[in-house]
Amino acid sequence: VETRRLEAFSDGVLAIAITLLILDVKVPAPRHGSLLAALGHEWPSYAAYVVSFLTIGIMWVNHHALFDHVRRADRALLFWNVGLLLTIAFLPFPTSVLARYVRSPAHGSAAAFVYSATLAVIGLGYLALWRHLRRHPELLAPEATQHVVVGFRRTLAGPSTYAIAAALAWVSPYLTLVLCAGLAVYFVFPGRVRPP
Amino acid sequence: VETRRLEAFSDGVLAIAITLLILDVKVPAPRHGSLLAALGHEWPSYAAYVVSFLTIGIMWVNHHALFDHVRRADRALLFWNVGLLLTIAFLPFPTSVLARYVRSPAHGSAAAFVYSATLAVIGLGYLALWRHLRRHPELLAPEATQHVVVGFRRTLAGPSTYAIAAALAWVSPYLTLVLCAGLAVYFVFPGRVRPP
Amino acid sequence: VETRRLEAFSDGVLAIAITLLILDVKVPAPRHGSLLAALGHEWPSYAAYVVSFLTIGIMWVNHHALFDHVRRADRALLFWNVGLLLTIAFLPFPTSVLARYVRSPAHGSAAAFVYSATLAVIGLGYLALWRHLRRHPELLAPEATQHVVVGFRRTLAGPSTYAIAAALAWVSPYLTLVLCAGLAVYFVFPGRVRPP
Amino acid sequence: VETRRLEAFSDGVLAIAITLLILDVKVPAPRHGSLLAALGHEWPSYAAYVVSFLTIGIMWVNHHALFDHVRRADRALLFWNVGLLLTIAFLPFPTSVLARYVRSPAHGSAAAFVYSATLAVIGLGYLALWRHLRRHPELLAPEATQHVVVGFRRTLAGPSTYAIAAALAWVSPYLTLVLCAGLAVYFVFPGRVRPP
Repeated sequence: VETRRLEAFSDGVLAIAITLLILDVKVPAPRHGSLLAALGHEWPSYAAYVVSFLTIGIMWVNHHALFDHVRRADRALLFWNVGLLLTIAFLPFPTSVLARYVRSPAHGSAAAFVYSATLAVIGLGYLALWRHLRRHPELLAPEATQHVVVGFRRTLAGPSTYAIAAALAWVSPYLTLVLCAGLAVYFVFPGRVRPP
Repeated sequence: VETRRLEAFSDGVLAIAITLLILDVKVPAPRHGSLLAALGHEWPSYAAYVVSFLTIGIMWVNHHALFDHVRRADRALLFWNVGLLLTIAFLPFPTSVLARYVRSPAHGSAAAFVYSATLAVIGLGYLALWRHLRRHPELLAPEATQHVVVGFRRTLAGPSTYAIAAALAWVSPYLTLVLCAGLAVYFVFPGRVRPP
Repeated sequence: VETRRLEAFSDGVLAIAITLLILDVKVPAPRHGSLLAALGHEWPSYAAYVVSFLTIGIMWVNHHALFDHVRRADRALLFWNVGLLLTIAFLPFPTSVLARYVRSPAHGSAAAFVYSATLAVIGLGYLALWRHLRRHPELLAPEATQHVVVGFRRTLAGPSTYAIAAALAWVSPYLTLVLCAGLAVYFVFPGRVRPP
Repeated sequence: VETRRLEAFSDGVLAIAITLLILDVKVPAPRHGSLLAALGHEWPSYAAYVVSFLTIGIMWVNHHALFDHVRRADRALLFWNVGLLLTIAFLPFPTSVLARYVRSPAHGSAAAFVYSATLAVIGLGYLALWRHLRRHPELLAPEATQHVVVGFRRTLAGPSTYAIAAALAWVSPYLTLVLCAGLAVYFVFPGRVRPP
């Protein structure tokens, strides 16, 4: 029972965070020239929207895949889950920062750094949750232990790659954006790439 | 189980997207003249709110009608569904664009074009989902296959008509608004009009 | 099954609409004088928040009480329910209008009129839903028919009283605000006042 | 059944209120200097976000722990619950006030006072709910009465400590912020500290 409610609350927060992203896409005012050109000029907002939407969507899928194996929740699991939600619900803010500054020669790298550093922190949040479950197999379904161990190794890939994306932001913010988009697509197909 | 959660998450996103629409209806400041006149002057905001609300409402009804036939979800179905939600959750933005520029002689047509082009893209998202189900009858309930084939033909009507509405925006943006409103009402009563 | 989903979607929209109300309470900037005085000066925002919150809360309670009697939903019921949600989800806008203009000597009456006229329209939406159920007893649980008939007479009280509150706005907007608050409290205790 | 819906609606409101908090974290405009410095300068927004997020998260956990013991809901319980949700859904506003003014020499204390006074009022809302349940043991599961009595004594700690935090705001707003953060962490681990 406890787990079902935990999942429903997490689903709610994820569904709201994903839908709030559109509030940061602002209607432009075409000064001279056409509205279509002004709308086209806002492409970083759409790109940031799409990447963040896909990323939260994948997080939802993975959150469910993980909790399919969980039978019981203890206080510490609740705490780690609230912590994870805290970082995911924060994502609309760095998404806005990215959309607004990615093209700025002065601030583009910093914006992309903050964006993918946030994704790395979310990845660490997942790791913390996963580590807690590995140490408390009594919370898991009996047949699940092996899955969680394998998944843990795979989950390590998340924060490390986002950390690399954050470092590459200082080379080019667009590189970070492309890398984060690629990671979202990569995590959609976890079955394709198996851990060694 | 998988499908139930998929539906709950989709319901959440649709319920939030439909309710966020009101945030784009802004309180006007009456300069000279009455508040009622200033509020009346904002009619494109209300019209856009009503059309988008009905359209998302219909989408929710149809999403449920479709998933009533689905027994299992594979990874690709999850992906197509997240893609569909991405386009629906985007709708508050073109709704704002439409509300702000539909009356503008210079930008009205572009605003209406963007609005109904978004609806056409959402329709394509449904088509993609539907096509995936047609090709994977093992995901469907046994008795559902025929329904889905018939429904597919019907679903084709959505993006094509919205594409026509987008083309007509260059004649008159009001024409597009009326056509989109009409389509929302038409899709409310799918039983009335049967495919040939 | 259909009804359970209808209720879940309605619950979602109501929960979001009620929570969005706070977004229209804006942080004031104290020019000279204390922050507490500036916050106190914003009392119409808090009053409008409380009245609208209670009103939507009551609507949620009554929506549930009504749908407890419903066994099946037809297309028309779905349509009337989407229509009702459309008017309820609209409420944050007249709430903002009321909060901003209730004190204005020029615009206070118009603001209060728009606010309680919206509530009257929501009441009419309930009536339409109720009328549909009365005419289609096959959608109801067998023992429910009598309840719905009695409830219908009671539901008539809603839009009529809000219409009176709207008319009284032209006497004083504060009168309307007090009346709407009173109605929210009155509808909390429907068992106390029985229909004749 | 009644209780299940009550919980679902409460979960919805809490999930939305917790996720809306991010909308008050605004993207800064770096005037001179780096974007990272400008983002760092916004630290009160992040601190207020984290404290409010954790606080609402704890409220969700405790709301569930309480309603686990409740078997039936009467009208008064519905009313007290809507009242509690009204105060929790209000929290994004004092969170904004705190974030904006905590550093202001003139207004910092007032902002912190308003913030923790709101938390004290939420605590009183819990107390009212709890008191109603204590007086109506027929609404509780048989084995639950003792838990609720013990919990009541514990719940008293909430509003009293937040009231102290509100008083200390006049000494230093940072003291209040630290105290509220500490309380959130303390309430995460209710098992650790037992009532005497």
